[in-house]
Amino acid sequence: MDIPHGWATSSDGKALEKSFRFKDFSEAFAFLTRVAMHAEKIDHHPEFTSVWNRVDFRLTSHDAGGVTERDVELAMAIEELFRPSSVHGGNGIKSA
Amino acid sequence: MDIPHGWATSSDGKALEKSFRFKDFSEAFAFLTRVAMHAEKIDHHPEFTSVWNRVDFRLTSHDAGGVTERDVELAMAIEELFRPSSVHGGNGIKSA
Amino acid sequence: MDIPHGWATSSDGKALEKSFRFKDFSEAFAFLTRVAMHAEKIDHHPEFTSVWNRVDFRLTSHDAGGVTERDVELAMAIEELFRPSSVHGGNGIKSA
Amino acid sequence: MDIPHGWATSSDGKALEKSFRFKDFSEAFAFLTRVAMHAEKIDHHPEFTSVWNRVDFRLTSHDAGGVTERDVELAMAIEELFRPSSVHGGNGIKSA
Repeated sequence: MDIPHGWATSSDGKALEKSFRFKDFSEAFAFLTRVAMHAEKIDHHPEFTSVWNRVDFRLTSHDAGGVTERDVELAMAIEELFRPSSVHGGNGIKSA
Repeated sequence: MDIPHGWATSSDGKALEKSFRFKDFSEAFAFLTRVAMHAEKIDHHPEFTSVWNRVDFRLTSHDAGGVTERDVELAMAIEELFRPSSVHGGNGIKSA
Repeated sequence: MDIPHGWATSSDGKALEKSFRFKDFSEAFAFLTRVAMHAEKIDHHPEFTSVWNRVDFRLTSHDAGGVTERDVELAMAIEELFRPSSVHGGNGIKSA
Repeated sequence: MDIPHGWATSSDGKALEKSFRFKDFSEAFAFLTRVAMHAEKIDHHPEFTSVWNRVDFRLTSHDAGGVTERDVELAMAIEELFRPSSVHGGNGIKSA
């Protein structure tokens, strides 16, 4: 499995982990909201811890007792949600 | 009152209005979540309509029956939330 | 199609509409968040207008130019999200 | 300080902790959204960990290096948000 950049296996070997840092809580929670919508869509949910502007993800497949392809795909999706501006030229396109 | 760029008075003269367009629903709703948190913070809430990737705001002060300084300030705050990347160099700063 | 209780066809005949009222903005927006997650899951998104503690939904299938079975199903899902307490004995089950 | 029911001091003595359990992820995240709006309003943010339908809170005042009155007040506010139905007769009041 090709793990996205910055993600690492947890010390117990059972999860993929990565921390993200934002400007403030508002930006961090908006990001979590996007991840939450995606998680519901794919029916695979990350564990996450929020400490103000920081979000720590832990991805594991409870039924399999460890990391599966679904976790790698979720890690890739989280990366994609984290980089809207680089791909789409802004957090949005203003319209009059 | 100095109304931010792109906001216009509604046809009935009682509100400030502007439409915003995003990449998709996920991005639009994450933006709404940030606006919602800010609205709770300042205890002044925008009216908004969501149509997939578009959000239309209507700002008015019900108690005053029209536009007040609070609406202008809310319009400015919404603009600020709309431009995190230009100000802060990304939707967030990744951390290992 | 069996339209859920309280939903009505819009005056233009092209949508299903219903208004919901909540205690305050916080409760209304939390409800919208649940609807947003469901909308992403089924890839069918309601139009909605938020005015403080009120949310007005308008369900239509743009590609079909009117109401389809997908809108009826979305209306039923929104009803289900609106009544978690009656079905599940509380907004949540506290755990020590 | 009068700590709300079910909250306990963490093993390191520096925080108040409590776990909440919900029907599913959707209900848990909607609750988090309400807590997030309140946190922005009072400018005091809980740490929280989400594991599908469970949310664990950890309340501490970083500047004071431990539990302060602000954490107790936040705990009380979280309890209040957790019990909308018992106080207000439903998750919302339907309106035609």
